[in-house]
Amino acid sequence: MGTTQLESAQEPKYWHLKTVLSEALDSEFSVGEILPNERDLAARFGVARATLRQALEQLELEGRLQRRRGVGTTVAPPRVGVSVGTTAQAWPGAADDSWGGLDGAEAVPPTAVARALGTADGEQVHTVRRSRIFAGRPVAAELLYIPAASVPGLPAIDTPTGALRARAVLRELQRSTLQGQDRSVELGSVGADDARELDRLPGAPVLVVTTRFYAGDRTAAVSVATYRADTCRLTFGDSGGVEIHQDPERHAS
Amino acid sequence: MGTTQLESAQEPKYWHLKTVLSEALDSEFSVGEILPNERDLAARFGVARATLRQALEQLELEGRLQRRRGVGTTVAPPRVGVSVGTTAQAWPGAADDSWGGLDGAEAVPPTAVARALGTADGEQVHTVRRSRIFAGRPVAAELLYIPAASVPGLPAIDTPTGALRARAVLRELQRSTLQGQDRSVELGSVGADDARELDRLPGAPVLVVTTRFYAGDRTAAVSVATYRADTCRLTFGDSGGVEIHQDPERHAS
Repeated sequence: MGTTQLESAQEPKYWHLKTVLSEALDSEFSVGEILPNERDLAARFGVARATLRQALEQLELEGRLQRRRGVGTTVAPPRVGVSVGTTAQAWPGAADDSWGGLDGAEAVPPTAVARALGTADGEQVHTVRRSRIFAGRPVAAELLYIPAASVPGLPAIDTPTGALRARAVLRELQRSTLQGQDRSVELGSVGADDARELDRLPGAPVLVVTTRFYAGDRTAAVSVATYRADTCRLTFGDSGGVEIHQDPERHAS
Repeated sequence: MGTTQLESAQEPKYWHLKTVLSEALDSEFSVGEILPNERDLAARFGVARATLRQALEQLELEGRLQRRRGVGTTVAPPRVGVSVGTTAQAWPGAADDSWGGLDGAEAVPPTAVARALGTADGEQVHTVRRSRIFAGRPVAAELLYIPAASVPGLPAIDTPTGALRARAVLRELQRSTLQGQDRSVELGSVGADDARELDRLPGAPVLVVTTRFYAGDRTAAVSVATYRADTCRLTFGDSGGVEIHQDPERHAS
């Protein structure tokens, strides 16, 4: 690791250090390798511990480093490309679905979801909780909100929670004709429930994907899915099957 | 602001405080209002300053609060929904484009972009820098990479940089038939150049949208766009014109 470029920085020192460290990660370290400790790294680059820590935080944000308790800071594997949007539209729970771990219940949705669904204040809706596993690790947790009006033929369900309940609701929802869907992605922080499921601490940054499903000229269901921002790259493929095998944005930010 | 729920918390204290604060923001504060100072807030909720600060950081991550120097912490306006993907595919710079501030140059792309484009090590490509303004404020900065092979009919350009150069490259690119495009979204931190343009400090979290444009059975161009994660919600509308005017995921994460 050279320290040559650190003198003439116009940028904040930690930012420049980040760039130099990033290049060192490419050329000198392999995935999973443990970085030298902070004291040694700071000495090597002639920076204060606080500056070093800021640079390490940036690299963590960019998915280049992982900090794990009892292990230290390791070089992260490339982010996994997880397909979120395709041209083919389908109800949640359709055959080719990559979600599992179903759990159904009833709950009052958050205000903004209730507004989107057009339900009354305090009105309960069906909820379906699902999780998405990719390469053996949990990458996303989802909560679906489905008002009673969207599943009019649903038979009375005895069980207040559980997978059977969830499946019955999804099956009934799938009987309607899906008119379209809209998606949005934004930065969020993971709640306590999802944090446990995603193996993160509450408050860790996540990518929140909100999907509105339209049927019968109204919003028939809303899905709020939280993806791990450290390990996931969300892919939206419109090109009809062209897969991105490489990782073009790895160093591009 | 009540403090009632703070005792029986199973979750980390700052997380629970965040939830209570979030509800208070909804019910007691309006957009743009300045929050009481940290000392007062900590006293009010009976928590340590460090706990309060963690909760405020979470709320900033979720776009609920803004911290501005010399002003203090204010209640943020709802995030702006910025359309990123539509079913209609188009080359960058096509007529209905919402980008401006063109600047063209030549540069060696980052390794991963070069790999995607299939250019040789150290080979220069055309670059076009653009920025996106929404409601009078910069929301995104983009760098397009276009190899010489994608613009074979480009006349010799005298000017090494500038808008004329950028326009000539985009015009030539648009002559090819666009076969498709793929998009990915991931978390990143903003570089020094983009930070200036987006009015952020280097290292602030951004949503990095990477788009690959396919023509002639290869990747003809790569766009790397960084969106402000604090103010933007990226929307992907597949539903043929159904607009989301509300903000359903506001409180849903």
